[in-house]
Amino acid sequence: MIRQGLLGQLISDLCALPGVGPKSAQRMAFYLLQRDRGGAIRLAETLLSASKKIAYCEQCRTLTEDKLCRLCADKSRDSSMVCVVESPADVWAVEQAATFKGVYFVLHGHLSPLDGIGPEEIGLNLLENRLAAGDVGEIILATNSTVEGEATAHLIAEMAKKYQVKATRIAHGVPMGGELEYIDSGTLSHAFNGRRQV
Amino acid sequence: MIRQGLLGQLISDLCALPGVGPKSAQRMAFYLLQRDRGGAIRLAETLLSASKKIAYCEQCRTLTEDKLCRLCADKSRDSSMVCVVESPADVWAVEQAATFKGVYFVLHGHLSPLDGIGPEEIGLNLLENRLAAGDVGEIILATNSTVEGEATAHLIAEMAKKYQVKATRIAHGVPMGGELEYIDSGTLSHAFNGRRQV
Repeated sequence: MIRQGLLGQLISDLCALPGVGPKSAQRMAFYLLQRDRGGAIRLAETLLSASKKIAYCEQCRTLTEDKLCRLCADKSRDSSMVCVVESPADVWAVEQAATFKGVYFVLHGHLSPLDGIGPEEIGLNLLENRLAAGDVGEIILATNSTVEGEATAHLIAEMAKKYQVKATRIAHGVPMGGELEYIDSGTLSHAFNGRRQV
Repeated sequence: MIRQGLLGQLISDLCALPGVGPKSAQRMAFYLLQRDRGGAIRLAETLLSASKKIAYCEQCRTLTEDKLCRLCADKSRDSSMVCVVESPADVWAVEQAATFKGVYFVLHGHLSPLDGIGPEEIGLNLLENRLAAGDVGEIILATNSTVEGEATAHLIAEMAKKYQVKATRIAHGVPMGGELEYIDSGTLSHAFNGRRQV
């Protein structure tokens, strides 16, 4: 068969990318080899150095090639406000909203005792050290609103209470621009329970 | 901003892939770094060696890392039947249909005088040498059915005539499973002109 050799290898390795099947991989391989070898080499070199150098920030566990990520290292940010999220992608999402000026703590998952993921695995000992050190004023729980995310938020709230640190949970309700008619009932009941006086 | 450093670099380099925008690139970068560094390193290494080693087959101009591609080197294929296509991806498409057992010739484009793409640029001198050598019995024109593809097919057919080589054009008509109601009129008129006795 024709799908052998280096070209076949390239196509099958491109399938390692999420959302890329054999057809798109084939299109990518042909495109790179025929039109953009410079881009292919640049991508390869960045992939290699990123895979080797990027690790977790010592303080917030997000992905970074330095000891401290840019956000933790930035003195202009308020390090007494800690936003707890499940993944580095969530940090980016919150940063893009551009309203939060504190720092983050990345769990890399959520509590899931059946899968052997307990407090240690999501770095809660590290977070507890920070709470114990006494320089955290508020902890904002921005874990996902799934059963596991809620359980994780609950455990962290308990931990914060032990150290007399205020713990808050981000609001869940009708998204901006959302029409009531199309909102699921779980979200709507959250929105009613979380109503505020105007 | 957070979109700096090696991670930002990786995301922007992933955007070099066709069909990948900033959002998918971000998803790919996080996925590779968090779940599949082995896959990332494998992909990087294959990209590097493919970019350096893959060139054109000396005989048919398809992409290969060897002097002769697997299809040209395969003695069991009928080298007197030459199928002319516009791109290496077309070779794969025809191979997947698995009915053609001859060899190929890849133009890497089509005639386009306004863009400075003449017969030399699409390798027609190489094809002419093969016709002159006298071991080609039939040349199958499988260029795309666009204006440029038709013009290119026409020129090659004229060239074949000069060397008394039979030139054929693949059939254009209603695709298998296609319903007449939804077929465009150009295709339908092709299908009527190309009708055969049953």
